[in-house]
Amino acid sequence: MKPKEIPVCGEAAVRAVFDKNPDAVRRLFFDYPTSRRSAKLSSRMARARRVYRVVEPGELAKIAGTVHHGGIVAIVEQQPLREATAADALAWTGAAAGGRRAGPALLVLDGVGNAHNLGAIARTAAFFGVPRLVIADDARQALPGEAAHRVAEGGLEHVELFITRGLPEFLRGIAPGYEVIGTAVAGARPLAEVSRAAAVSRRPVALVLGNEEHGLSPGAAAACSRLVTIPGSGRVESLNVSVAAGVLIWELLAGG
Amino acid sequence: MKPKEIPVCGEAAVRAVFDKNPDAVRRLFFDYPTSRRSAKLSSRMARARRVYRVVEPGELAKIAGTVHHGGIVAIVEQQPLREATAADALAWTGAAAGGRRAGPALLVLDGVGNAHNLGAIARTAAFFGVPRLVIADDARQALPGEAAHRVAEGGLEHVELFITRGLPEFLRGIAPGYEVIGTAVAGARPLAEVSRAAAVSRRPVALVLGNEEHGLSPGAAAACSRLVTIPGSGRVESLNVSVAAGVLIWELLAGG
Repeated sequence: MKPKEIPVCGEAAVRAVFDKNPDAVRRLFFDYPTSRRSAKLSSRMARARRVYRVVEPGELAKIAGTVHHGGIVAIVEQQPLREATAADALAWTGAAAGGRRAGPALLVLDGVGNAHNLGAIARTAAFFGVPRLVIADDARQALPGEAAHRVAEGGLEHVELFITRGLPEFLRGIAPGYEVIGTAVAGARPLAEVSRAAAVSRRPVALVLGNEEHGLSPGAAAACSRLVTIPGSGRVESLNVSVAAGVLIWELLAGG
Repeated sequence: MKPKEIPVCGEAAVRAVFDKNPDAVRRLFFDYPTSRRSAKLSSRMARARRVYRVVEPGELAKIAGTVHHGGIVAIVEQQPLREATAADALAWTGAAAGGRRAGPALLVLDGVGNAHNLGAIARTAAFFGVPRLVIADDARQALPGEAAHRVAEGGLEHVELFITRGLPEFLRGIAPGYEVIGTAVAGARPLAEVSRAAAVSRRPVALVLGNEEHGLSPGAAAACSRLVTIPGSGRVESLNVSVAAGVLIWELLAGG
């Protein structure tokens, strides 16, 4: 079966693909101004004997499938999503474990359905140096396509992405090696308290974020060792999931 | 001159307008399922002798100007943006000042150009109980129209919005009453350090966020008493401004 190809748009995302996985770039298109800034990428395509060329703005939008292409579109062979088991995740903690640094931390998505949110969360994870993102094998869960890559601004190239079958089993399986912290829109322990508790633990944090509308699935929530709520004023019901992810990654994984 | 009318979409945003400023709702439209949940809003419109009715999905999208209307659209008389001076902002600190609680805190936007980002930041500010948002009188600055209201999920009704002429003068003027903290993508003091310094100050924080591409204008940056950077891994250049706002509001204004 021919691997699926997806358009990756925008200079940051395209440069990230060239840095991390240049072989996956099958074709490269840009508008004239962007081509002037992209001589090195063009040389690499020329050496690999692959198509690269300047196209008219209208054609670029057609190739990208969006007008939000930022002047450059790489057609990239989509990497198959690797599967991760709890044993894999325990191995990742390795010698680097111990503390709340982002290094060995893990981010887990349980049905985040909007591709823009997936991309925004990947950008934030990459920014803070979270190395791995595990998504649930759930029909609601967004997969990394064009929109997610564009919003991630290269973040999806800097975070290793895995899928896991049976999220509750996965979370129970990693509990010996991680503080498994799930999120709840209301009613769980407040963030500042959970942050202090996580800071004294010697285990890295696995942070589990749920679906935009429905939060964590009941099975996943039950498999977490702690549940956390970001306390709010009650004036609006909730934060956007990608903003909540930013606050939680900063506070629990990065250095808040 | 007739006041400008804007469509406010989505149940959370429409309910927030009815709570905070019911007189501004001139007409109300919904699809059939949403109308079933909106009997109280309909009664209020009937009592005020204003138009409300169920329309077909296609017409609702036309009224809303977007397919992302969430089943309900209120046509709202846009409130004029009130102007705020430094003297106004000093008066807001009043008796409530003293500490880092969100209560007397102030959020200032210096040319945040994307309406979705304005809406997302207003949602986060409302969530954390930040009472006031001051935007710069800058051609780059997004204003609160349909997209901002929709993304804010009611947040723009719960945060008082002001505009100020001459942002550097405004920031210098409020410095006696606020810790004026500006943001820089790189090179300023790290967030954890600035957070500790702000925590020992008895003054509320005024947090100043800059344009998505160019950050703070030089005049505004020079008028801040501190500049702060969210430290990153370097793997992607920056956070999305609405995610950065979430991290900064949590850490400096809310309770991080």
